[in-house]
Amino acid sequence: MPENNVLTVGKLGESGLLSRILPRLRGAKPLLGPGDDAALIAAPGGKFVFTVDTLVENQDFRLYWPSGFETSGFDVGWKSAAQNLSDVNAMGAIATSAVISLTLPHQTPVSWVEDLAEGFSAAMRELGASYCAIGGGDLGQGSELSITAALTGSLATDRPILRSGAKPGDVVAVCGVLGMAAAGLALLDSPVSHLEWSEADRVLVFGQRCPSPPLDSGPEAARAGATAMMDLSDGLLKDGLRMAVASGVGINFQTNTLADDLQKLLSAAQRLGIDPLDWVLGGGEDHGLLATFSSAEALPDGFRAVGTVLEADDGSGDRKVLVDGEAPVSAQGFDHFGG
Amino acid sequence: MPENNVLTVGKLGESGLLSRILPRLRGAKPLLGPGDDAALIAAPGGKFVFTVDTLVENQDFRLYWPSGFETSGFDVGWKSAAQNLSDVNAMGAIATSAVISLTLPHQTPVSWVEDLAEGFSAAMRELGASYCAIGGGDLGQGSELSITAALTGSLATDRPILRSGAKPGDVVAVCGVLGMAAAGLALLDSPVSHLEWSEADRVLVFGQRCPSPPLDSGPEAARAGATAMMDLSDGLLKDGLRMAVASGVGINFQTNTLADDLQKLLSAAQRLGIDPLDWVLGGGEDHGLLATFSSAEALPDGFRAVGTVLEADDGSGDRKVLVDGEAPVSAQGFDHFGG
Repeated sequence: MPENNVLTVGKLGESGLLSRILPRLRGAKPLLGPGDDAALIAAPGGKFVFTVDTLVENQDFRLYWPSGFETSGFDVGWKSAAQNLSDVNAMGAIATSAVISLTLPHQTPVSWVEDLAEGFSAAMRELGASYCAIGGGDLGQGSELSITAALTGSLATDRPILRSGAKPGDVVAVCGVLGMAAAGLALLDSPVSHLEWSEADRVLVFGQRCPSPPLDSGPEAARAGATAMMDLSDGLLKDGLRMAVASGVGINFQTNTLADDLQKLLSAAQRLGIDPLDWVLGGGEDHGLLATFSSAEALPDGFRAVGTVLEADDGSGDRKVLVDGEAPVSAQGFDHFGG
Repeated sequence: MPENNVLTVGKLGESGLLSRILPRLRGAKPLLGPGDDAALIAAPGGKFVFTVDTLVENQDFRLYWPSGFETSGFDVGWKSAAQNLSDVNAMGAIATSAVISLTLPHQTPVSWVEDLAEGFSAAMRELGASYCAIGGGDLGQGSELSITAALTGSLATDRPILRSGAKPGDVVAVCGVLGMAAAGLALLDSPVSHLEWSEADRVLVFGQRCPSPPLDSGPEAARAGATAMMDLSDGLLKDGLRMAVASGVGINFQTNTLADDLQKLLSAAQRLGIDPLDWVLGGGEDHGLLATFSSAEALPDGFRAVGTVLEADDGSGDRKVLVDGEAPVSAQGFDHFGG
């Protein structure tokens, strides 16, 4: 990527780079920061939620894809903000502050880093995280690009919504898209040139590059009495299994509720020779919400029923998560170490 | 480091690794976490300080040194905790919570990661951060080992102590060791085998491996009315310059106040052919405190005067920081991009 006449972070140095990044990290005003050893953040409720997530080059994103597509700094910044905002959302909370740590190879173009800061801020703004202040961060060198963001948030209700509250008989519901980021990833990873993508393909790839967690819906679900909730980061089956284990219940997903999700992916799936249900059930990184609600209540806006909570399994450990009443045979979601 | 029969993180997988790490991350109890999408942390004062720092292999630490010394996971965990605790300390605050993100090559031995978690917890405990809860974190794979911690803290007084409050006539004081981590780094980097280190050498190397920020002294300085304060992470001259610029003042360091610091480094410096003043003035990573106090007040326990705050410079930009009244000619401290 860098040519000789490109301004790189190695040439510019730390303080020069900071002066390019900070004006691009726009958000709500913190009580203090950046510029001191730490930022000062308001916590109106006397408590806050706290989360951290890292994106690493060639693990969580590629700069260059088999399709010939190049990932921009903007996309990486957006994705970092989005995945952390999603964790705050999934607690039923509203993001209040972020700090960012960047590890950059010295040959990284300064313009790429500026773009990353723009993407982080754009996600905050366009996803609706308008109360989130950017408090500061850390800059360092490494051989591999990575970005870590830590976010705090304020609860929308007097309690956080946990994974562990699902009760037999509850409705299992999702909010946001399913399988889109996985379909986009498959397109990026395909040898078919990105220049041949259809408009519909580009929408799927955008879902991978710039996921859109539904930020109003986490607090809304909390106010509507969600019994359990979590972020859909590793796929419906894998995240569903985590919720089932945490709650001591089983979950049955009904695929007839997923027809619209499948329809959106059908064309790309056929071209790539993939069952779109694998993307819908197993695809991660969509950053929607998986939540359970009492069946006596109407679902809040944006949520749609995709299954039901069952009694705990019989102890065999084999049926915590079912699909149409059967144990699923594929699409197990994503393990960061392949374990 | 890994042999074929070593259990690596790639073999164990994410959930197995988590089950090894979490029991080793002992701290105060958070309101909630780890296990959900975010932790829930108390902020008794309705506000909190917030900071983040990353350590990257071969940039912030080496696993194998020219001296033959091998860095343990314990040391890296300790250092990550210490440098973040130091940032909280420098605001006049007490750490209340931490989240940790680990990026690990798949061949990393699981025992090394367990050791890292032990080191992080040991630093919390032994440095006195007993109110700090470990809220959770993130695990991911990468080609390069790195650890990012984000910490929050509660102010000890009703205001944070900033870099920008130094006033002409104030006493410039430090708390903690100076130059020890730099001397330790030089020993680690020297071709002389670590097996030949003296007991005094090992103390210096310990200062680099496991720095000891004076955690009671940040809040104590705040209560004593410090006018400005910051963490000594990049060296007395460079951090002094930052404070001078933020405060719009000059600073004069008096080397006759540094005799004890120099004495501790003399033997190692002579052997390595280095002026120990370079370590004392320019060495980073000691994580002591640099603070200014009104000259009318006694310094709080643990602080010693090392200079005075001067009027702002004449606009030439050349004399923000002086040493014995002269512009320093070397020892400019550390820039993460060499800029």
